[in-house]
Amino acid sequence: MFITFEGIDGSGKSTQAKALAATLEAQGIEVVLTREPGGSPGAEEIRRMVLEGEPDKWSPQTELLLFTAARRDHLEKTIVPALAAGKVVICDRFADSTRVYQGITRGDLRKQVDTLHQLMIGREPDLTFIVDMDPSVGLARAKGRQGTEERFEDFGVSMQEQMREGFLSLAAEFPDRCIVIDGNRDIDTVAAEIAGIAKANLG
Amino acid sequence: MFITFEGIDGSGKSTQAKALAATLEAQGIEVVLTREPGGSPGAEEIRRMVLEGEPDKWSPQTELLLFTAARRDHLEKTIVPALAAGKVVICDRFADSTRVYQGITRGDLRKQVDTLHQLMIGREPDLTFIVDMDPSVGLARAKGRQGTEERFEDFGVSMQEQMREGFLSLAAEFPDRCIVIDGNRDIDTVAAEIAGIAKANLG
Ligand SMILES: Nc1ncnc2c1ncn2[C@@H]1O[C@H](COP(=O)(O)OP(=O)(O)OP(=O)(O)O)[C@@H](O)[C@H]1O
Ligand SMILES: Nc1ncnc2c1ncn2[C@@H]1O[C@H](COP(=O)(O)OP(=O)(O)OP(=O)(O)O)[C@@H](O)[C@H]1O
Ligand SMILES: [Mg+2]
Ligand SMILES: [Mg+2]
Repeated sequence: MFITFEGIDGSGKSTQAKALAATLEAQGIEVVLTREPGGSPGAEEIRRMVLEGEPDKWSPQTELLLFTAARRDHLEKTIVPALAAGKVVICDRFADSTRVYQGITRGDLRKQVDTLHQLMIGREPDLTFIVDMDPSVGLARAKGRQGTEERFEDFGVSMQEQMREGFLSLAAEFPDRCIVIDGNRDIDTVAAEIAGIAKANLG
Repeated sequence: MFITFEGIDGSGKSTQAKALAATLEAQGIEVVLTREPGGSPGAEEIRRMVLEGEPDKWSPQTELLLFTAARRDHLEKTIVPALAAGKVVICDRFADSTRVYQGITRGDLRKQVDTLHQLMIGREPDLTFIVDMDPSVGLARAKGRQGTEERFEDFGVSMQEQMREGFLSLAAEFPDRCIVIDGNRDIDTVAAEIAGIAKANLG
């Protein structure tokens, strides 16, 4: 079972991915909690290279290729082996983030995103939680944190609004695996709803 | 005019690229001499990441994506602007190296190589010199140099033989732009032949 969390910056993806991992582990289920870009040593190297530069360091096309390279490494080294060992993989962002960032907000590359995915990745999650929320609240939350990885957040609130629309469109495009979660509520309420859906899907 | 040099390790590509640049510059032609992987600040960062690791650090698929990312950056930041300014671009290795390394010797990825090239690069050189030579001589020459970028040379002489065949096949596949040069001769003889062909093409 391969579960992903998607949504705009600061919507609570990392918080909820961690909470779900803890809930499932408490029930004796073996979980691998991972994230993108990154999630394997090689992919983490690529992540640092992409996220620590200036906003215009890489074109949308180059960025797309780098994120696809990181995803391929992550898939080979972390995700596929864990799934093969019968574990539940919970991943904080995956291909839907690329579809939204590179396919919609940073350039009209959706066709290239899809061709690259089909050619070099070829794997979709079984279940995707799209944590939806007010973009200005998300941006304020994200700005409250530290770090040098501010490249994307620098693009501002109008980009966050475009991204929100992008994620909601994906939910409509992939209704079999995507579930939109209202992330405006408190952390425990959101976590309880997600845990219920995950358990139902784990059967 | 976009000119590339291709061929196995140690065949004399860098030596000949430099010699041709010097010859053309001596005639008042503006030349940009560049190389792959690398040739722009971002692409050089990717180059370091790929070439300084262990031989099995990246899978052939991930490596292909990283080299394509580096090529895209190099094309955008260095090659296209120089050509637009009317300069001659001389590039030490380009897409043919990827076709041979990733498409033939490191995995049977030729279809993916071609699809990625068409999707994200879409540019061929006007003229390609394939410097051909005895693989064991080339390997001995390459080993005479220093450096940490030994990842590919570690694969040994049988891989060099496969690569040689790969480059010769490409010359047959792209006869309009590829010229096979006998690199077993001394440096000046090879350089004189190459200069003659380049000038005829610059015409
Ligand atoms: N439901 C919530 N209510 C209030 N605060 C929240 C909620 N969910 C998360 N937070 C807080 O908001 C901040 C951002 O949360 P989190 O890091 O989980 O978001 P994210 O979607 O992973 O962001 P990013 O896309 O930047 O990684 C954190 O400080 C977190 O504690
Ligand atoms: N025709 C030649 N005869 C003898 N030595 C040569 C000749 N051409 C190049 N060399 C020497 O062989 C070594 C390798 O040459 P060079 O670096 O130009 O090869 P290369 O094809 O660029 O190799 P690599 O693929 O490893 O970059 C250098 O020391 C160079 O001086
Ligand atoms: Mg997060
Ligand atoms: Mg060289």
